[in-house]
Formats: sequence, C-alpha cells, structure tokens
Amino acid sequence: MKLALVQLNYHIGNYEENSNKIIAHIEEAKERGVDLVAFSELAVCGYPPLDLLTRQEFVEGAIAAIHDIAKHCQGIAAVVGGPSINPQARGKQLHNSAYFLADGVIKETIHKTLLPNYDVFDEYRYFQANQDFRVVNYKGKRIALTICEDLWDDQPTAAAFARNNLYTLSPMQKLAALKPDFMVNIAASPFSYHQENVRKQVVCKKAAEYRVPVAYVNQIGANTELIFDGGSMMVNSEGNITHRVPTFKEGVVDVETDSIDDVASDNLFETNPINLIHDGIVLGIRDYFRKSGLQKAVIGLSGGVDSAVTAALAVKALGAENVHGILLPSQYSSGHSVSDAEDLAANLGMGTHTVAIKDVYQSVENAMAPVFDGREADVTEENIQARIRGLLLMAYSNKFGHILLNTSNKSEAAVGYGTLYGDMNGGLSVLGDVYKTDVFKLARYLNKDGEMVPENTIVKPPSAELRPDQKDSDSLPDYDVLDKVLFRYIELNRSPQSIVEEGFDKEVVRKAVRLVNFNEYKRFQTAPILRVSGKAFGVGRRMPLVAKY
Amino acid sequence: MKLALVQLNYHIGNYEENSNKIIAHIEEAKERGVDLVAFSELAVCGYPPLDLLTRQEFVEGAIAAIHDIAKHCQGIAAVVGGPSINPQARGKQLHNSAYFLADGVIKETIHKTLLPNYDVFDEYRYFQANQDFRVVNYKGKRIALTICEDLWDDQPTAAAFARNNLYTLSPMQKLAALKPDFMVNIAASPFSYHQENVRKQVVCKKAAEYRVPVAYVNQIGANTELIFDGGSMMVNSEGNITHRVPTFKEGVVDVETDSIDDVASDNLFETNPINLIHDGIVLGIRDYFRKSGLQKAVIGLSGGVDSAVTAALAVKALGAENVHGILLPSQYSSGHSVSDAEDLAANLGMGTHTVAIKDVYQSVENAMAPVFDGREADVTEENIQARIRGLLLMAYSNKFGHILLNTSNKSEAAVGYGTLYGDMNGGLSVLGDVYKTDVFKLARYLNKDGEMVPENTIVKPPSAELRPDQKDSDSLPDYDVLDKVLFRYIELNRSPQSIVEEGFDKEVVRKAVRLVNFNEYKRFQTAPILRVSGKAFGVGRRMPLVAKY
Repeated sequence: MKLALVQLNYHIGNYEENSNKIIAHIEEAKERGVDLVAFSELAVCGYPPLDLLTRQEFVEGAIAAIHDIAKHCQGIAAVVGGPSINPQARGKQLHNSAYFLADGVIKETIHKTLLPNYDVFDEYRYFQANQDFRVVNYKGKRIALTICEDLWDDQPTAAAFARNNLYTLSPMQKLAALKPDFMVNIAASPFSYHQENVRKQVVCKKAAEYRVPVAYVNQIGANTELIFDGGSMMVNSEGNITHRVPTFKEGVVDVETDSIDDVASDNLFETNPINLIHDGIVLGIRDYFRKSGLQKAVIGLSGGVDSAVTAALAVKALGAENVHGILLPSQYSSGHSVSDAEDLAANLGMGTHTVAIKDVYQSVENAMAPVFDGREADVTEENIQARIRGLLLMAYSNKFGHILLNTSNKSEAAVGYGTLYGDMNGGLSVLGDVYKTDVFKLARYLNKDGEMVPENTIVKPPSAELRPDQKDSDSLPDYDVLDKVLFRYIELNRSPQSIVEEGFDKEVVRKAVRLVNFNEYKRFQTAPILRVSGKAFGVGRRMPLVAKY
Repeated sequence: MKLALVQLNYHIGNYEENSNKIIAHIEEAKERGVDLVAFSELAVCGYPPLDLLTRQEFVEGAIAAIHDIAKHCQGIAAVVGGPSINPQARGKQLHNSAYFLADGVIKETIHKTLLPNYDVFDEYRYFQANQDFRVVNYKGKRIALTICEDLWDDQPTAAAFARNNLYTLSPMQKLAALKPDFMVNIAASPFSYHQENVRKQVVCKKAAEYRVPVAYVNQIGANTELIFDGGSMMVNSEGNITHRVPTFKEGVVDVETDSIDDVASDNLFETNPINLIHDGIVLGIRDYFRKSGLQKAVIGLSGGVDSAVTAALAVKALGAENVHGILLPSQYSSGHSVSDAEDLAANLGMGTHTVAIKDVYQSVENAMAPVFDGREADVTEENIQARIRGLLLMAYSNKFGHILLNTSNKSEAAVGYGTLYGDMNGGLSVLGDVYKTDVFKLARYLNKDGEMVPENTIVKPPSAELRPDQKDSDSLPDYDVLDKVLFRYIELNRSPQSIVEEGFDKEVVRKAVRLVNFNEYKRFQTAPILRVSGKAFGVGRRMPLVAKY
C-alpha cells in the first residue's frame, strides 16, 4: 500500500484554509497513485484549540469541514484529525478523533485513548477517552489508528506518572493484539529542544516492541506559545526510521508499506539545542505574525545581546524590511550602546529611529517631584526609564501598526530582572524561554555565516544601563551559575535542598529560588513566550500567585 | 455524635499558619465536647495549589503537617483535607484526600473520586481518582467521607457533561449502599454570585435523594483570582438545612447528628447578586493584600464610576488609611472629573495627590515628533495619555510600596476598551468580572448607608476623556445592550447566531463578538481578575490568542 505522510501548518479555527490545504494534498496524492494519505491530530481545526472546543459553532464548523474533505476521498483514503461528538449522554461532550475517510464519506471514527493533561496539555478538559479498540480494513490491509499520546504508554519520566491510567492494557497492547499490518499515529507534539530526540526514540521503540510499522505524522507551525517542529517519519517493525519529512517546514513523504523493511535506515536528525532553538523561534515569530494577520515588528535596540538576537531572529522570520529598531538612549547609556545598536541595524539592513528619553524623563521627575517630596532615588527611577521606553515603543507600534517584540530572556523572566509595563512590554516574547547563556550561544550561531550580532555586543558585560556603571552582576549571580541553578529549579523541578546538595552555593540557590517565587506576579502579566524548552514560563507552568512557598 | 463544621481561610503553602489554625480549632472543639471536627478540602496546603503539587518539598510539607495535626487528635477525631501519595507505580502521583485523624494518628485516608477538570479546575492534572469505597467507623457511627465534586454526580448543566465518567455508579451511590449514618463532604468550592444557590440545592437534593445527612464544609478566603464564600451547612436526610456557617467569614457550627431531623429548617441565604459581588470583592481584595504580605493600595481616580467603586471597595477591604488616590487630569479632563474624584476621596476619607499629565504628554509628543513626522493624531495619542497615567501610578507604587489596583470593568475587558500598559495596569483587577451596568448597581449599593460614590459620578455619561467631548457610547453600543450580549456570549457560551435569534441587533452582536475575540491579546497580559461570575476572564476561560474564529 502506498502511504503519504503529510506534514502541514494549520491555523486554529481557519476551516477554509485548513480544509483547502488538506484537500489540495489529497488531490496531489491521488495523482501520485497514493492509496492512503495521513494528516495530523486535530488537523482540521488546528491544535490546540483550547476552549473554542466548548463552542457549538466551532465544533460544528470542524465536523462540516471533515464532511467536505471526505467528498474528495474517491479512489483514495485519508486519515484526518478532528473533534467528534460523544454520543453518550454522560462524560465529556467530545472525542479527539482520527477520521478515516474513503468512498466520499466518513468510514470510521477512531478516538484517542490517552489524553495528556500535564505540562502544556489540557485534553481531559475537553475529551472523553476511547474504550473501543479496532483496526480499519482498507484495500486488504489492517490499519491501526492511534493519536499522539496513545503511543507514549510507558515513558519512565516524571511526566509519565502524570498520565492517564484508565486501562490496565495500553492502547498499543490492545491494538497490537489485533495484528495490524501497520499503524498510523497522528500527532500534535510540540517542539522543545530535546523533544525531537525523545519522540524519535519513543516511536522507534514502540514500533520494535510491538513489531508493527508506524507512520508518525505531526504538524508544524506555531500557535501562540507552542511551536511544532513536525518530525514526521516512517518507522519499520524493527524500529528503524525509513523515511522522514524535514522538520520546521511543510512536507510530504510517500512510503510503500510493503517494502519498508528493505529500506535503509535513516536516523539523521538535528540534535544541537541552539540550532533547534534558532529554527523554532524563527518559525514561532513568523507564524505569530502571519496567523494574526500582522506583518511588521518594532524592537527597542539597547546595544545589548538580547535585543540584538531578537532583532536578528525577527529579520530572519519577517525580512529586514518588516523589522524596525528604535534606539532609546538615556543619560546612563554608554557610548557603545548606540554604536553597537547602529552596527546591528547595519548588519541586518533594518531601519531605525533614535529617540533620546532624557527630556521625557525630566518631565516625569518634575511631575512627580511634589509627590516624591525629596525622597532618595531608588529603583523607582530605574523603572521610570524602562517604562518611558516601553511607552515610546508602544506609541510607535500604535502609530505605524508594528507589533512590539519583547526582548527579555528566561534568566531575567525567572528572577524578575525587568520592569512590568516597561521592558516587559510586547506582543510576543521571543527569548523568554532562552537562558542568558544560551542567548550568547544563539548570537554566535547567528554569526556563523557573517556577522549579524556585533562582536562588541557579545563580549561586553551585560548591563541594564539604568544607573551609572550598572552591571547585571551587581545584583544577580553570574549567569553561568544562575542559569544552571534556574534550570535545575524550573526545568528539572528539583528542590532547593537537592540543588545545594549537587554542590551549588547555598546562598545563591536560596536567592535564585526566592526571586523566582517572588516574581510570579510579573510573569502573570507577561507576553506569550515562545516555548523551546521542556518547561517554559507560561501555559505549561501554573503556579499560584498568592501563596507562601 | 457531636460534629463541628469549621470554615476557615487558608493560605496556600503556609503550613505553619494553616496547621496552627486547624490545631487551635481542634483544641477548642475538644473543650466543647465535640467528637468529630471537619475541615475543608486540601485545608492543610490551601486550595488551589496548582503546580506546587508537582514539587516534592511541597507535598512532603503537607504530609508532615497532617502528621503534626494528627498528634492533637486525642479524644477527638478530625477530617482534614490534604494531598496523599498514590502508592501505585502507574497513574498520577497524588490523591486528593480526606484524612481521618484519631488517637493521635492517621486512621484512614479516603480519596476524591470525581476530579473536576473544567472551568477553573485542573484536578486531573495532579490527582489519581479513587476506586475504593468504604465508610469510616468511629464511636459506633458509620461515616461516609466525600470530597467536593463527589457530591455533584448528576447536575443537568453543560458543565456536568464535562465531568469525569470513570464509573457507572457515582461515589454517592457506592457510599449510600454502605448505609452510612451521615456523610461529611469537604469542599473547596469557589464563589460566584449564583454558586451559593446552586450549591445549596445540590447538597439538599443529594441528602434527600440518598437519605443521608450531609455535613458540608467549604473554605472561605481568596487566592489570587478565586474567591471562596464558605456556605458550610448541615443538611438532614430530608434535604433540609439545619445549621449554617455565615458566608464570607471564618466560623464554626456544632451539630448533634442524632437529632438533626428535629431541628427547624433554616433556608435563609443571600441571593442578591450585587450584595454577593460586593462581599466577594471586599474579601478578594483583603486576602490578596494580606496573603501577599502587602498593606497599601494606590488607585488612579478619574472621577468615573469604575475608579470610584474600586476605591470604595478597597477602603472597605483595607481601611481608608491604606488606600491612596492619584488624580491625573489632562487637557481633555472635564472640570467635574477632578471635583468628583475629590468628593469621592472626601467621602471615603482617603488621601490623594493630583498630578497633571499635560507637561509629560507634551514631552512625549516632542520626543516622537520627528518619528511621527506630521501624521494625524489618532488612537496613538489617546493611548499615550493612558500610558503616562499608568507610568505615574507605577512610579508612586514603586516609591511608596503601594500596590496599584486596576479599575477596568468586565465590559471594557471584553471589548478591549482599555490601554495595555496604561489603564490596564495593576496588581489586581477589582472589577474585571463586573459588567459596567453592575458597576453602577454596586455604586448604588455602596451608597445605601450614606454617600460613598458621588451622585454626579453615577449619573454622568461614561467617558474615557482621552479626546474632547469623548463618550463611551461614541464607539461602543449602549452598555444596557452590550452587557446583555456579552453575558450571552461569555457566560452562557451561546453562538452569535443564537444571540441574534433572541432578538438582539445583528450588527451589535457581530461587533461585540468581533471585539471580544480580537482583544484576547490584551487580556492575555491583564492583571489577575477577582472572579465573581460563572465565567470570568482568566483561568476559567482559555482561548487561543493566535486563531481565526
């Protein structure tokens, strides 16, 4: 049987665009003589649709689109993900389903069994779990259909314990017992810089364990915080990858299921986290703009590495003509701040304006002088500068319709080293899931084919430049140490005590943890952060704001 | 058997405070000759702890606190809610449990069966469901323990369909079959202005249906967005309320379980939504400050009804000495803006400062003039004013340690009639779940014992005063109509088409829905909103930002 794995970028709720894409690929596959074409999980409505699934008109739209697509399945079959209605009066109203379309109609509707409800996932909020295991018979083949998590039935990770345990036997065991010729797993598995590796291992292991070839079809594209890298692949029953669709882009691969055990294994995939983060963020920016109907970005350029890397990534995603920089020097800005930012803009070919903030700052000082009544300068005055910059950037954004990109990194977001309504402004946080030490690595990576980020921006010591001669290291531990502590506390979810036991300085750990916990209130109001790690601030990490811990 | 229902206010993660409170109430109950004292769901750690439940040290702290509390249960028994560890290798790591403490130890640990995972609830993210039904035998009584949702097994609401359906029989049926003498239901059921009524009906109906007296113990207090009103009650097996603890405050009621069918029914409870919203918000503000270790609030006073009602509620919650107002008039402010705000401050006895924004505005205009290059004034200039106000308020907040209270109402939050990083600033949104028409009703209610909100503030037409002679009604439908449409779209989750079919103007519905959907990006970055309705913006409503719908 000739099988096509189709890896596409879907737009949540955009039935017209999603259906048209799916139908076009069905028609093209027909011309190539494909028997069965597979699209990813909830392809028809996009993933994750969140509470749109509670709206009747949204679900009706999805099901109508499935029927439209089915009409094009003449002489070819398709597997398309979409919501379906649970006919039972009790339980959740919907299933997360794989529609098997053939002969112009919906032939079968197979539901997801394991509904992830941890980290960034909330599927148990919407869907009723499957309890009925069967294969689809088509053109003499027995085809098992599973959806994403159904394949992940025994991962020895902490997350695995947080999974569904409705059945003693896993869906894989239930389906393998039915002796399918092959399995199609349709997925919506979000990117993180180690996920591609983990995912590959799981698919290969499961195919070998159950002796069943697995066609794995994931989506690409970004939807708000979540980026999807694809990584669609065919794995034979020995657990070898025989075909792959390149990551981070739309693509198709055709597979002859009867001869895949003869195909040479192809295990090549990118594993360098920095390269992956780079590709993920570029896609994330591009899709945020495209899917929101936006074109142009504005960025405050400080001469520092965060805004430089943000600008370089934005230029790669949107084109230099769509990215504008604003330099906002104050009396505390060093001379190199302006020249480094100008060098950056020249390297990237982007336009800039320079607006000194000194006079606005003075007018604010004057206005508040009677209220402040001679009190000493403190962090208030630093925040005023950051907020004036935020205000001027938003004024540009409003006047010209450019969306402000936020330039805060994960280290800063973690410890609250940023001003709410100031440098924390922005429609999208580009680097909010990238630690400062990795921002430097990204800068080097961006420069691999010629300088984008000026060398001086990379080598000078980081500074917020909100008071004379300020350095980040005045108030924070060195990023080399801080980032390691933060990674253990946030990504690895280790207790402060166990981090100290690993050999980190007790006082540094205590301070870092205290700052992370205390600054939950700032992160509550932060822009959506493009998620590239296993634990980003945002939807996957839900901490109470008013709490003592 | 003498039973004490103890309704307390818990602080998430504050084991010392929570344990001390619980222990003090156990000791007092001993002195009153109580046999069994019942505390609410997850009392020991506070509700909702969210992802703190994924942290080892947090769970260990909770379990250590339970052991400490158990030591005080000599000659008395206690039911205390807390997390417990699921001993099975598979499934979620925790149970949501009712600990039965007696003879100085944990006698029984009974787990929650129905784990709500809809609206504001995410319990399936953390907890494994109970599968083992038994009663606790103590002093000759057979006591059934259930936890919150376990009682809500057949609500004919849309939400009910979104509930767990792991068992054909509900926990109520399973436990009723064991013929308990009475049931203790420990709950953490959040407030909304109709929830007290719904909750009472459910508890009474279930007690009568299963012919079992039910002691219902809920918590009070606010944790970030969620407010808890208590409403703890004893219901006899005929479904009549025999004892109640007053809502919105800590309290205890002792019940003699053997004679409750003789006690006169007491069904009195507050049903007026405005009175309930008032009480809920006052508690919400007070707890946000107290539990965050904060004392003082600052509010921008515009002379309008939103800031006036916010200030009045803040004064009730925190005391006039802890609430400071800042008047920030511009050239577009009417004369009455300042005088109405001054009248308000005089009524409330709160201090104020007045800071004209004209000069700062002019300095921003000057700074941006070369960039704007002669372009027409538009919404940019309105936003600049709002952001200057936000900046000055935050400067006061930073300098004096007062927390800025946000004054936006739900109608504005819905349609995006507010400036991000401007009037949307604030640590807590007081009225973000109160429609504009209800804000006026709250103003009248606040004035019932003497004027708090000036009459002119209530009767003048709403205006943002960001351009000459501006009125809200210039750009929005009348609030009388708009709020009804919004309520149907947001709270009732009705489709735009069905709202039109109810008789609302098609163009008004189309515009309102479009604005709600488009402004998801503003609400993404909004302050936490005190939830008082059945569907607030925030944790209970999760819409994709980058989507087409």
